[in-house]
Amino acid sequence: MKEERENWYGEQQTNNVKLLFKMKKKLYDDRSKYQHLEIYESFEFGKIMFLDGTVQLTERDEFIYHEMITHVPLNYHRAPKKVLVIGGGDGGTVRELLKHKVESITLVEIDKIVVDASKKYFPSLAKSLDDPKVEVIIDDGIKYVENTNSRYDIVIIDSTDPVGPAKALFSDAFYRNVRSKLNKNGVIVTQSGSPFYYPEHLKIAVKNMKKSLAYTYTYLADIPTYPSSIWSFTIATDTKLEKVYRRKIDTKYYSYKLHKNLVLPFFVDTIINSI
Amino acid sequence: MKEERENWYGEQQTNNVKLLFKMKKKLYDDRSKYQHLEIYESFEFGKIMFLDGTVQLTERDEFIYHEMITHVPLNYHRAPKKVLVIGGGDGGTVRELLKHKVESITLVEIDKIVVDASKKYFPSLAKSLDDPKVEVIIDDGIKYVENTNSRYDIVIIDSTDPVGPAKALFSDAFYRNVRSKLNKNGVIVTQSGSPFYYPEHLKIAVKNMKKSLAYTYTYLADIPTYPSSIWSFTIATDTKLEKVYRRKIDTKYYSYKLHKNLVLPFFVDTIINSI
Repeated sequence: MKEERENWYGEQQTNNVKLLFKMKKKLYDDRSKYQHLEIYESFEFGKIMFLDGTVQLTERDEFIYHEMITHVPLNYHRAPKKVLVIGGGDGGTVRELLKHKVESITLVEIDKIVVDASKKYFPSLAKSLDDPKVEVIIDDGIKYVENTNSRYDIVIIDSTDPVGPAKALFSDAFYRNVRSKLNKNGVIVTQSGSPFYYPEHLKIAVKNMKKSLAYTYTYLADIPTYPSSIWSFTIATDTKLEKVYRRKIDTKYYSYKLHKNLVLPFFVDTIINSI
Repeated sequence: MKEERENWYGEQQTNNVKLLFKMKKKLYDDRSKYQHLEIYESFEFGKIMFLDGTVQLTERDEFIYHEMITHVPLNYHRAPKKVLVIGGGDGGTVRELLKHKVESITLVEIDKIVVDASKKYFPSLAKSLDDPKVEVIIDDGIKYVENTNSRYDIVIIDSTDPVGPAKALFSDAFYRNVRSKLNKNGVIVTQSGSPFYYPEHLKIAVKNMKKSLAYTYTYLADIPTYPSSIWSFTIATDTKLEKVYRRKIDTKYYSYKLHKNLVLPFFVDTIINSI
């Protein structure tokens, strides 16, 4: 297999591994105060969004991430009504939330260009942001959580990894503030990275969540275009989660049965038990 | 991220997706009558073996494939004693088999250079082939199964994908022959490819197995260096599998709990239900 210079672009997932996509064309390239946003049209995965050179979503496999960050926490809650999303400016998480009987969704995205570019290039995700139940606030999620008087049943931290601008979203101070804005039986979830390449990201999330909340639950999904594809999410709550609510929702990856049977491979259990 | 010409090598997983590894050096390159075998030393994944340009195994993540193709079928069987492996000349599957109380293992690998190169470059896998319980036969698995008078409790089809030399290992004629060499309560398992990129591979395996055996069970593992990383295995039996036997085996991915909770994502269920 020869390296071809033209039309191949992708993510350097570690210093020593790259996943490359053959691209039709670049659709968008801009830098905000926070990050570098690029959107390409690829042959295999449809449109792909990169932030600072890392794949955020592809049209073909985004359903896995967005279903799993949404339906797992919501279906652990008896009656999720008020939801806060930190990040997630592409609208994919909100699209999944709207499949539930929620009353209001507040999305706090720090970077306006993510919302604007998603409305233009990913309308099937971002049109969800125009739903009357949804309020989009362009602001720093850390500050928003500190200052809001609202209370939430579910808080979804749909951020980038804890190495760039999102580092503070994995801190104990942030989780403590989020907890203080939860209703009774509230559920927090965060994406917690690749336990294969970056077990320390998962450890930071779990360790810092445990400082403020009684229980954490880590689960995985297999996301082809994310580094190593073994991807973790971590839930934190003050009440023990026992029941999975079975709700009719239209999905492609998530199912009630999958949810009931979420189990970690042994090496991921080992990482968590080492915290 | 710039494309660099030097030291990056990997697999073109589809026409439009490549996974590349930064390599220290090439260790081996030879062509047999059957295939092109290359071995590299990589920075991230240790040594990597390619057959006809596709990743067969890496030192870092081979445990996932080898544990899942072995412990799932064996722990569905009350007392697996006699095992046949078709392919698997690297020895990884046999290494896992030797963690069980099996009496004999017959490995039929068509290509001697796979066994020889594995003994040299992957001794931690291939030394298993020197165990006194193991017989290695260099022969065509199709012919071996047709002609043998032996009977097996477990048959593991540890082959490449059904596009090259391994195509006949996914045929109904082959599964029918394998079935005729099974002991009572025997279990067949095959790797059945990526349901994400190549659902037709999974369909062929399931459809053809169902022609000769009463039940099939498909399960997945998340293997970072295989195409899409969503990887399927399919078991076929004439007896309904109900019990998972809990056995003490040293693993990094497989666990009894994982086995008990194997569930398919919805889109994979849909592929299977469409057959």
